Amino acid sequence: MSTDLFQAIHSPIGANAGFALGLAGLGGGFCLQSDRIPGQDIFIGYKEENTLYMLPFYEKSISSEKDTFAKDENGSSLQEHAFTEAEVSRSFGLATDTFQAGRLSFSLMNRVTELSDVERGEEPDVKAKILPAIVARFCVDNRDGRQDIQGFFGVGNMKGKQFLSQIYGEDRCGVISKDGYGFGAVAEGAAELQEIADFDMFHVFERKQPVRLMLASMGGILFRVPAGGRAEIDLALGWYLGGTVTQGLHSCHYLYTEYYEDLPHVLAAALADRESLFKEAEENEHYLEGTGLSSVRKKLLCQSVKSYYISSMLMKEGEKIRWIVNEGTFLMMNTFDLLIDHLFFECRYHPWTVRNALDFFVESYSYKDQCGISFTHDMGSHYVFTPEGHSSYEIPHLTDCFSYMTQEQLCNWILAAAVYAHRTGDTAWLLSRKETLTECLHSMKNRDGQIPDGIMDVDSSRCDGGSEITTYDSLDVSLGQARRNSYIAGKCFASYLALGSMFEKLSMEKYREMADSAADICEENMLAYYDSEKKRFPALFDGEGTMAIVPIIEGIIYPVFSGRPEAVSEDGKYGRLIRALKEHIQTVLVPGICLFEDGGFKLSETSDNSWISKIFLCQYIIEKVLHMNMPEIMDRADAAHWSWWTEGCVSDPGIDQIFAGKQTERGFHYPRCVTSILWTEE
Amino acid sequence: MSTDLFQAIHSPIGANAGFALGLAGLGGGFCLQSDRIPGQDIFIGYKEENTLYMLPFYEKSISSEKDTFAKDENGSSLQEHAFTEAEVSRSFGLATDTFQAGRLSFSLMNRVTELSDVERGEEPDVKAKILPAIVARFCVDNRDGRQDIQGFFGVGNMKGKQFLSQIYGEDRCGVISKDGYGFGAVAEGAAELQEIADFDMFHVFERKQPVRLMLASMGGILFRVPAGGRAEIDLALGWYLGGTVTQGLHSCHYLYTEYYEDLPHVLAAALADRESLFKEAEENEHYLEGTGLSSVRKKLLCQSVKSYYISSMLMKEGEKIRWIVNEGTFLMMNTFDLLIDHLFFECRYHPWTVRNALDFFVESYSYKDQCGISFTHDMGSHYVFTPEGHSSYEIPHLTDCFSYMTQEQLCNWILAAAVYAHRTGDTAWLLSRKETLTECLHSMKNRDGQIPDGIMDVDSSRCDGGSEITTYDSLDVSLGQARRNSYIAGKCFASYLALGSMFEKLSMEKYREMADSAADICEENMLAYYDSEKKRFPALFDGEGTMAIVPIIEGIIYPVFSGRPEAVSEDGKYGRLIRALKEHIQTVLVPGICLFEDGGFKLSETSDNSWISKIFLCQYIIEKVLHMNMPEIMDRADAAHWSWWTEGCVSDPGIDQIFAGKQTERGFHYPRCVTSILWTEE
Repeated sequence: MSTDLFQAIHSPIGANAGFALGLAGLGGGFCLQSDRIPGQDIFIGYKEENTLYMLPFYEKSISSEKDTFAKDENGSSLQEHAFTEAEVSRSFGLATDTFQAGRLSFSLMNRVTELSDVERGEEPDVKAKILPAIVARFCVDNRDGRQDIQGFFGVGNMKGKQFLSQIYGEDRCGVISKDGYGFGAVAEGAAELQEIADFDMFHVFERKQPVRLMLASMGGILFRVPAGGRAEIDLALGWYLGGTVTQGLHSCHYLYTEYYEDLPHVLAAALADRESLFKEAEENEHYLEGTGLSSVRKKLLCQSVKSYYISSMLMKEGEKIRWIVNEGTFLMMNTFDLLIDHLFFECRYHPWTVRNALDFFVESYSYKDQCGISFTHDMGSHYVFTPEGHSSYEIPHLTDCFSYMTQEQLCNWILAAAVYAHRTGDTAWLLSRKETLTECLHSMKNRDGQIPDGIMDVDSSRCDGGSEITTYDSLDVSLGQARRNSYIAGKCFASYLALGSMFEKLSMEKYREMADSAADICEENMLAYYDSEKKRFPALFDGEGTMAIVPIIEGIIYPVFSGRPEAVSEDGKYGRLIRALKEHIQTVLVPGICLFEDGGFKLSETSDNSWISKIFLCQYIIEKVLHMNMPEIMDRADAAHWSWWTEGCVSDPGIDQIFAGKQTERGFHYPRCVTSILWTEE
Repeated sequence: MSTDLFQAIHSPIGANAGFALGLAGLGGGFCLQSDRIPGQDIFIGYKEENTLYMLPFYEKSISSEKDTFAKDENGSSLQEHAFTEAEVSRSFGLATDTFQAGRLSFSLMNRVTELSDVERGEEPDVKAKILPAIVARFCVDNRDGRQDIQGFFGVGNMKGKQFLSQIYGEDRCGVISKDGYGFGAVAEGAAELQEIADFDMFHVFERKQPVRLMLASMGGILFRVPAGGRAEIDLALGWYLGGTVTQGLHSCHYLYTEYYEDLPHVLAAALADRESLFKEAEENEHYLEGTGLSSVRKKLLCQSVKSYYISSMLMKEGEKIRWIVNEGTFLMMNTFDLLIDHLFFECRYHPWTVRNALDFFVESYSYKDQCGISFTHDMGSHYVFTPEGHSSYEIPHLTDCFSYMTQEQLCNWILAAAVYAHRTGDTAWLLSRKETLTECLHSMKNRDGQIPDGIMDVDSSRCDGGSEITTYDSLDVSLGQARRNSYIAGKCFASYLALGSMFEKLSMEKYREMADSAADICEENMLAYYDSEKKRFPALFDGEGTMAIVPIIEGIIYPVFSGRPEAVSEDGKYGRLIRALKEHIQTVLVPGICLFEDGGFKLSETSDNSWISKIFLCQYIIEKVLHMNMPEIMDRADAAHWSWWTEGCVSDPGIDQIFAGKQTERGFHYPRCVTSILWTEE
């Protein structure tokens, strides 16, 4: 059963950090360079009479009937009341997440804001925008109460604690951990705000007086809400990791460490700036309202965006700015086949980060095989940059997962460059990458094989007898194999068009012609495989792989975002292809082919492995590029995808790969599904 | 059933690091600032024909019959053979641990060496002695083999890997992790030594060629042993954690970081120095042989010593040297009631570290209550130093675990100071601590209460209504309560004698007299509680707690180690007390009182919670201070204690607190049981 109490992560920008909250019966808490969502018990609640009323965000809160409680300080037997799902109302926004239950409301914010070109020094508010902290507002309403109650916020498994009051004096309140995270608090309307350390919130109230038992695992705050009063506690949740945090080929530190001295300063800055942070969050909610998206799409979008920033790292290497997005739980850095999907979100909020990563790929993570240039799958993993020209993922001799993605990453560089250049008008950058662009064109054509039909035929020599794969590495051959794959063909078609538009901007007419004519040939040969009787394309253009896939349409989004929308118009030069793709989608987007029984998208007819990020992308293409109007199919699909996230994968924020609506892992997080931002494009 | 395949940790000195190996069916591996033993799969073995022969130090090795294996590169079906316990012979030494099975032998060394006064610059070989690495020798004997075989060493769950060959060129071989540990290797007699990265050792041999899949979790090495040949691979296992690693009141870095640049340099130094490291280990084994201890006591001693150094941290704070011993799994720093037990071991190998810690206590972790000076339980936990005069453990209002240990820590400072001063003859230091010593005497006497009977009566005002406890914090009142406890009385008696001997050295006659006469009064009143009919002391000198405890004898060890052995002689001044204690032990050291059914020591008649470190201490006192000859009881006890460690607690190296031979936790480690070094005292 779907639930409103699913896990979500709330993050600042570029700190590889977040705070997870929302999953009933389990904790969440502070993530910092974490591959998984942590399991810290989060105690948010109040004690009224002899009962602790709490949001159910700690382990065992759902079924717990603790009968072993001691008495409280008045000799009453303590009772626990974890609010049930029915008692909690959640308001899940783009930059906020608010829980209300009983007398309390708790609202977390996360950052979603434009970040102008930091690399070129064009962002005036860089210090404020990269603050590695978020804020939260915790209200306890005792206005109709007849006696004082006590509010509390506590975080379990918080090792190596220090209290802000002990470092900075009694006007500061908060707890920090040796592991680089912590929280600070300011109170209005509450009395006796105090720091505590104990084993859990139950122990706190079993004692005569609250204690600071530093060895105990929970750090927290307590406050009194007078009868007839209402307390508003503003919290800053922050992170700080100083020094060099990456190893291998590149030694980087977090940019924020150049602006903030340490975690207590970060927390102080966040509390000082809290009103503007709340305002930013509010504006984001207004924006979301204005999009006119369905309520389900709004939720899908919000969860995607929240799951992206936790993986972002805004770094410095010497004087160079480095933007890195970790591959969620897998911690590969700047995975290129994710970058191409993050592209649309990044071009909305900080397009320069795309350029930054593209430059980084050229500088350190390009290589040449027998066909010419391409780019690595990633730049390393687990904070270790791999040696030049090598990824942490690709190895030889394989025909599936962990083989090379040479063709696809080549397309990805071309497509991302074109979208960036069009979005920003940064032709100067294109000019500086002229050589790379011509190398890319040659490399594309060499991979086409001896008979130039625009369809990739040549596996990279790096495979050493193996075969290239695609980003769909864990799918069957319908999407896993790169050679003569219709999905790759679509991306090659788009890559030639993208090269054409870039060469045009650079007035490199000869190259433009080469690129455009390659696109023509590619289109023609894609169409040659169209089965006009069955009204569908096969997955593989090899005469054998006849199963249907949805992502054959992926490629056609790029002309729209790189200034050639007419190329993918039904009435344009490539109208035949567009019409065939429309027909294909009409044919395959039916239950039993490319829809699951619940109406969710099945990217490949022959695999139960379906990817949310790519589904969102394809939904946009169907609706806004192919201009197909299928509200019933889409509404049903949206509902299914939301239920995958909140039923099959309730503990995995932003999880992408899902098998028929389910996932067995717990605590995964993944940044890729921000393709949902496309739904808000005009 | 007891096993030879129990967990053990092998460590350098002062790096808070170790390598765990020896537990069948589970891994172990690299510990660095770890509260628990990690669970890295360790693959040590060779492939002969189509079978992988391996030591069983990886998960599920005991029962695994992997029938899902793919073919190897020759098309043969791979087989797994994890050596069974019967097939493995283990030689468990003081500084070595050697496993032999099939064609392989694998021998790990750990450091046990004297470390002269680093604080005063008296250790000429400090760089070599604090090298944060150990070495291992891995032999594969194919002399009677008819075909080449492949040897391998691999470590699972090794995140963020780099290869030494990629950083330093092809003459280096090894793998390091972003988490600050790794290994290097040099080979003799082997061919094609190469680095690998893969998911596990099975994957390695399923591939056409070995790969370096950086994303995969296992890092390792492979080598070929030619038919008729024998390969000897020397491994360095090292750790490195740069920068400031403690927070709170004191910011410290590891001293070794001033001598070694990074982990690759550490590994290179270890390999360069390996012959002398193996020689040191060999000399330690000769020493062990020469002790004449029973084989069981040898094993108990070896396991104790191995479990100590992993908790040691040799640090610098600015220009100051800091010696810190973490409390094993609990990570409290310089827990004082452990220091007093580590004392004998430290005075053997590096007495100056005792002085270093005592000074540190005076400087930052002493405090004054209504009675005068005492010292905190610890200096903080989880690498965070607590504020001045406060520990991470003690809180008010309690009568058991986490209450204050004011009286006992006061005794501990006095006793450790006396033993240090006697061991080193460092009267200059005593002189510098003259003021502290007089404060200690006053504080001792004030805690005695209004009627001075030498028995502690006054709980610290810090308890704020609660009661002081003893180091036996988790025991029942027989040992848990400090006030009028016979164990504390014994330590107070010893503390007065220790003060007396120190004041004598300082020619402070008036104070010597005060101290000695307090010892006289204490002895007299202890004797007053002796039940000469039942021939035993009660645990509590309050007329109520009549149960028997063994540790009432603990105190009398200190005169022996602080230059007053005659004070605890049966014929000496306090002969009556000594004779009563002998009779007490004779009475209570029987099954049903202070022996478990299996013959193991039961420290308190009324609790199943017994502590190995204290048992070893008491065994020494019984045999060498009380001169009681009870070989049958001792042999049976030794066998029981060894079976507690290798049956009830097989995965917890050096674990101290054990409940009737068992412990439910897994992966604990604990430094305290080095009291076993006393058995080797003349």
